Amino acid sequence: MKVKYELLKNDTKTKARYGLLHTNYGTYETPMFMPVGTQATVKTLSPEELKEMNSAVILSNTYHLWLRPGCDIVYNAGGLHKFMNYNGPILTDSGGFQVFSLAKNKSKDITEEGVHFKSHIDGSNLFLTPELSIQIQNKLDSDIAMSFDECIPYPATYEYAKASTERTLRWAKRGKGVFNNERQSLFGIVQGGAYEDLRNYSAIETVKMDFDGYSIGGTSVGEDKTTMYKMIDDAIKYLPIDKPRYLMGVGDPIDIIEGVVRGVDMFDCVLPTRIARHGNAFTRHGKINIKNAKYKEDFTPIEVGCDCYTCTHYTKAYIRHLIVSSESFGQRLLSIHNIRFLIKLTEDLRESIKNDNILEYKDAFIKEYSGGNDK
Amino acid sequence: MKVKYELLKNDTKTKARYGLLHTNYGTYETPMFMPVGTQATVKTLSPEELKEMNSAVILSNTYHLWLRPGCDIVYNAGGLHKFMNYNGPILTDSGGFQVFSLAKNKSKDITEEGVHFKSHIDGSNLFLTPELSIQIQNKLDSDIAMSFDECIPYPATYEYAKASTERTLRWAKRGKGVFNNERQSLFGIVQGGAYEDLRNYSAIETVKMDFDGYSIGGTSVGEDKTTMYKMIDDAIKYLPIDKPRYLMGVGDPIDIIEGVVRGVDMFDCVLPTRIARHGNAFTRHGKINIKNAKYKEDFTPIEVGCDCYTCTHYTKAYIRHLIVSSESFGQRLLSIHNIRFLIKLTEDLRESIKNDNILEYKDAFIKEYSGGNDK
Repeated sequence: MKVKYELLKNDTKTKARYGLLHTNYGTYETPMFMPVGTQATVKTLSPEELKEMNSAVILSNTYHLWLRPGCDIVYNAGGLHKFMNYNGPILTDSGGFQVFSLAKNKSKDITEEGVHFKSHIDGSNLFLTPELSIQIQNKLDSDIAMSFDECIPYPATYEYAKASTERTLRWAKRGKGVFNNERQSLFGIVQGGAYEDLRNYSAIETVKMDFDGYSIGGTSVGEDKTTMYKMIDDAIKYLPIDKPRYLMGVGDPIDIIEGVVRGVDMFDCVLPTRIARHGNAFTRHGKINIKNAKYKEDFTPIEVGCDCYTCTHYTKAYIRHLIVSSESFGQRLLSIHNIRFLIKLTEDLRESIKNDNILEYKDAFIKEYSGGNDK
Repeated sequence: MKVKYELLKNDTKTKARYGLLHTNYGTYETPMFMPVGTQATVKTLSPEELKEMNSAVILSNTYHLWLRPGCDIVYNAGGLHKFMNYNGPILTDSGGFQVFSLAKNKSKDITEEGVHFKSHIDGSNLFLTPELSIQIQNKLDSDIAMSFDECIPYPATYEYAKASTERTLRWAKRGKGVFNNERQSLFGIVQGGAYEDLRNYSAIETVKMDFDGYSIGGTSVGEDKTTMYKMIDDAIKYLPIDKPRYLMGVGDPIDIIEGVVRGVDMFDCVLPTRIARHGNAFTRHGKINIKNAKYKEDFTPIEVGCDCYTCTHYTKAYIRHLIVSSESFGQRLLSIHNIRFLIKLTEDLRESIKNDNILEYKDAFIKEYSGGNDK
């Protein structure tokens, strides 16, 4: 079935909204944070651990799975759910962002037909088109597929942004034209760079194509926070209220809150697992680095009161020892905590919408979080 | 309490024996395989996963914990069990083997007093003595501590082996003299190189000191299998029947079986986790390497019928994808399977002792295992 968004409550003072996302694998509350499993695995974690931390939708990546193991292998395995043993909803992104980020300093050639670029694995020449991206995703059999888009760099000239935005619209139409998977949903992506009129235009034209949900792309590419929040505002005001809205690649706690008060329902980011690999952990008082010598004999959890497996079983001193000793169990423990931290944040945000106090929650969170801990 | 070995059944045709090991953390059947958590973590695995695969005693390492995080930190954490959150028996080895293996190509100076060598972490000068090894282990508060010994290289001259064996006996006595932890047991280690009379002598003299259990050290250091099995025979015939016997560092499936029929109760080895990191898995038909292209679309488990988490949830194709993509979840899945494989092997061996058919079991296993799979 196609995903269905059910709006349960609009916040009275902001654009925040509380709702439900009905999927092939159950119904989940929004706003939600979606952990990222780029290569068909959320780094270091098992599906059971993801469920235990109350995750709902997880992401995987079309570009990476196309290259390795190959979409036919995933298809022959019975689709991505069976391949990776995840009994919950999966969203695949289109590969557009990877073409942008991985090929950034290499040869990349964007044409009307698609994008020529080099494999990050073996340097071989690749050509990804809007149709191919959709066909790969149809085969992967995720629950939600994304349109193939160009993520516009920041800064970009108006001319570049306009041409790119128009091309992304044509690509969206072409992808939708070949889409062929009854149980899969397809989201359109709003681009437009940092230009208000282009964001508006992109949103209006994308919505005209009638997708199952709408993503806001092209943020977190180097712009300042004020610009980023305005890019969200400029896109979201033209999105329909009966479809889910997904802000792509955003996982900073404060950005999630700012997104929620602007009406975003879904977020994803590699941040919680990526910072874990470097020994960083989210706390209510800001990020800490567990390698800091002051945690050598700190026999308290990363965060007192946190309900995650890590905080209920292990101390900072032990996790520090693991990270300093390059033991991957340390990355696993930090990944569990960091993902749970963002999921819990969205749980708290949902409660605050229900209780009509999201602005109070936001102010208190930002004050505490920005107060710092390692500072 | 000190560990107690309870002999329940001697095999009728071999020296194999089935028994119980009573520990501070419960009673466990022997023969047993003990997974190794060198740095206070069995690489990639949680304590819950170890319990799920029916592990009993696990190992950790005095030398590594002495250097990092330092034994005082573990002591202040409340001991190793609390530090690493393992609610089961822990055995620490003395550091002797690490001095032998890590310092092999570096400066190492063995004196009567102890061993001067360089840290594998920062090259700093270290000096480990029999007393210090015991004092560190007393602080770590493992359930079973090991005497500090020299692992004799192979080959070694008779003169070298004799002098070293005698020194190891003096070291054992010195370590025992300072031992001070009522809830901890201390095992002596039989050395003697590959010389029958020295093995006999080492066993007899070590037993005279009345330890809580006896280890057979100095095997698997380059000698051929016939020599290795004879080293076990030469040591074990002088060990008392009422104390546990531990063959150190042995984890090859066939060597475990050969050890069991010679009367060994306990085994440990890094092999199952180490080979996992290189994509290797034990099967009843020998080791396989999951990176082999033939597993690309193999949607069956590593071993049909295996009861481990990995085999009941994942296919070779998926695990291959993870290993090829350097995803640590792949190492975790292979580590689970490999450790469970060796634990299951000891479970089967216990059954075969109870059923008086261990020689039939041994022949069938070796025939199947040596038949190969990737050959």
